[in-house]
Amino acid sequence: MSEFNAHDIAKAAKTAFQDSQLIPSSERVNALHEIRKSLEANKAEIIKANAEDLKAAEIEVGAGKMSETLLKRLDLNKGDKWDSMLQGILDVAALPDPTGSVSYASELDDELELYRVACPIGVLLVIFEARPEVVVNIASLAIKSGNTAILKGGKESNRTTTLLSKAISAGLAKTAIPALYIQAIQTRAEVSSLLELDQYIDLVIPRGGNSLVKNIQNGTRIPVMGHADGLCSVFIDEGADVTKAVRVAIDSKIDYPAACNASETLILHESVVHTVWPPVAKALLEANVKLLCDPPSLDALKALSPRPSNLETLHLNLTLSVIVLPSLQSAIQFINSHSSHHTDSIVTESDAAASTFCRGVDSAGTFVNASTRFADGFRYGFGTEVGVSTGKIHARGPVGLDGLVTYKYMMRSKAPSGHIVGEFGTSKKQYKHTPIKATSVPFLQ
Amino acid sequence: MSEFNAHDIAKAAKTAFQDSQLIPSSERVNALHEIRKSLEANKAEIIKANAEDLKAAEIEVGAGKMSETLLKRLDLNKGDKWDSMLQGILDVAALPDPTGSVSYASELDDELELYRVACPIGVLLVIFEARPEVVVNIASLAIKSGNTAILKGGKESNRTTTLLSKAISAGLAKTAIPALYIQAIQTRAEVSSLLELDQYIDLVIPRGGNSLVKNIQNGTRIPVMGHADGLCSVFIDEGADVTKAVRVAIDSKIDYPAACNASETLILHESVVHTVWPPVAKALLEANVKLLCDPPSLDALKALSPRPSNLETLHLNLTLSVIVLPSLQSAIQFINSHSSHHTDSIVTESDAAASTFCRGVDSAGTFVNASTRFADGFRYGFGTEVGVSTGKIHARGPVGLDGLVTYKYMMRSKAPSGHIVGEFGTSKKQYKHTPIKATSVPFLQ
Repeated sequence: MSEFNAHDIAKAAKTAFQDSQLIPSSERVNALHEIRKSLEANKAEIIKANAEDLKAAEIEVGAGKMSETLLKRLDLNKGDKWDSMLQGILDVAALPDPTGSVSYASELDDELELYRVACPIGVLLVIFEARPEVVVNIASLAIKSGNTAILKGGKESNRTTTLLSKAISAGLAKTAIPALYIQAIQTRAEVSSLLELDQYIDLVIPRGGNSLVKNIQNGTRIPVMGHADGLCSVFIDEGADVTKAVRVAIDSKIDYPAACNASETLILHESVVHTVWPPVAKALLEANVKLLCDPPSLDALKALSPRPSNLETLHLNLTLSVIVLPSLQSAIQFINSHSSHHTDSIVTESDAAASTFCRGVDSAGTFVNASTRFADGFRYGFGTEVGVSTGKIHARGPVGLDGLVTYKYMMRSKAPSGHIVGEFGTSKKQYKHTPIKATSVPFLQ
Repeated sequence: MSEFNAHDIAKAAKTAFQDSQLIPSSERVNALHEIRKSLEANKAEIIKANAEDLKAAEIEVGAGKMSETLLKRLDLNKGDKWDSMLQGILDVAALPDPTGSVSYASELDDELELYRVACPIGVLLVIFEARPEVVVNIASLAIKSGNTAILKGGKESNRTTTLLSKAISAGLAKTAIPALYIQAIQTRAEVSSLLELDQYIDLVIPRGGNSLVKNIQNGTRIPVMGHADGLCSVFIDEGADVTKAVRVAIDSKIDYPAACNASETLILHESVVHTVWPPVAKALLEANVKLLCDPPSLDALKALSPRPSNLETLHLNLTLSVIVLPSLQSAIQFINSHSSHHTDSIVTESDAAASTFCRGVDSAGTFVNASTRFADGFRYGFGTEVGVSTGKIHARGPVGLDGLVTYKYMMRSKAPSGHIVGEFGTSKKQYKHTPIKATSVPFLQ
């Protein structure tokens, strides 16, 4: 697609955003219900397109050009995937409105009020893997939070995502929300063109690996909320409880090894190498986890047969690196240097060690005696998630609807002649800064 | 300076940050007091260096290579500038700690608690104009919020900033805070090298014009909190009160024309062209404001002598563009297309128009019957400000200490055998998500 068209898409998204500012948020909820109906009405056609995507993908898999995992993710008709996709729309519709709430309010002077109010960000460009249901998930989150979105899924799902996006637009057309609120694009070239349009696009959300995120950060002035790899670790502290250590190490690794919150590294305090480590290693090996040990952790398991150490590798499979370190402090330093600042867990009986670990580890999640797999928007209680941000700016860790809003400051003077700054200063009026208790802006209609 | 040194600086900043995570925030306050003492003790030397900067700058001004305004900003010994700089340190020290507070807490299960807690971002790279006192302001804000900072001021102030930074390090050396918490660099080449080091630097804050901000956004993967130009406008609505219109238009323009929150554009609803506009124009002209009018606003002032329209120009002086538009809706569209999304104000007697304007204008500040000049961290009640963010991500509008923190999630299981995800699901345990009332994390020591 030409740059001209990318420009049109981006401008249309911004216009749709600006045109929707006076529409009440209840209409966004209504739109979600209409989208659900429209998807249900067009199910046969969408599933047919999905079958074509699957057929093409099977040929790729047969030729060894695509993984079975990717193929499985493509299938929209598998198990209850279609129904849970539609249920997800209703779940998002039922979440609290993330816009309109006041997070700071102050009376600056008699009859001069300031409100900081949550509002949508604007136009989102979301780039994600070849999982067609993500189109519907992200569209729901964008609409619920009042943002317009331009969506780009993996190319293997193009036929499906095109029809999903058409059905979403058909649903929107029955409401006051502009039909161009959600637009789908197909090619990387379109993404490149859109990344230049910082006058229209407010935030890029790439979901995928480190290289996708870095490529996008390199090529745009638009802020990027990256969802890069998770390189999570579990640290077994001096005097750790064996049961806790076994349970947390196993669950962090095997509950869902392909997830970004699965652990890739197990760090052992040197004092547990001959005590806690052997039963933990036994449990991991019995669960078919391949252990890549450093020499001290290997020596302690001489009766077993693990392989040499291989650190700083993202496995996303049943392989786990094991390293022995002399102290809590060195474990914290190791994690800060080698982890991806996603989620790290300590197994410990010491309150002081728990506190030191949680303060010292510079990650989005620092857990005590709990599996790294808990790092997830649903488990955190956000209802759903946009993804897990590995950045520190704007939103960090699992991102719920709150991560898709910003705020603006609204100020109103009710004084008979308005308010001017020139009246304040030394030997003039002083600012009052009296807190106002308000959950919404009283003068908005 | 070579890339090798930039790398050392960045790595030292990150190490200083990580090493300081267990230091209580009270020590950061102590550090601010030590810095104030150190600056006072080194005043003579600093003022001498400042005199040398001034002398070099005067030669530049004489050769027509520098503006008088820049020269004035350089002078650290002018009026009460030195004393207010030192007072500013105490003011920041006295502000509430922006770290440690809990913004979300939930009991996910019996004995499994989740806390979202405010924490420093990490390493800041701050680039600013040739105003030496800003070194001290930004250092105070960084230390108070627990961030380390690398500072680059305008080259004209290099002699002064080097000594200020030395005095700051000397103050820090008397405390538990690492002396490399604050580092100053001198050249643009160093900035370029640092912008590549996203493994160490967490946030870039450029204070300056659009071109500085855009250049930096183009050249880095590190998130940028831009402080670009302000292109603010005042809209005089149908039926606006003449007194309010005159006061708000005058104050927005003349209170401090060089500030980013001064107005550059006056938009007139066409119905006020022959009613409210003439007295507003008269007042502006009497205040020596040069009016660049469009034909309709010019026609209405035939007895006066303004010049033709010149829109979309940042004046930062006493020139004001004037444009007539047919409706509130067209004014909102004009502002969204032409303003810099900083602060815009409506003068109106209509509650409906006030609400529509505040909802519809996509700017950090939307004001009703109040001067755009109120857009300022001190006036908003934040005590001080890092600057005014013209972006929408992380912090928008005047940025106080809250804009220099992020959050992390801390989770603790108190269950006898820890917590694992595999125990939850259909026909297993369900998440409770019971809100916890907490202002701090109970298990941090």
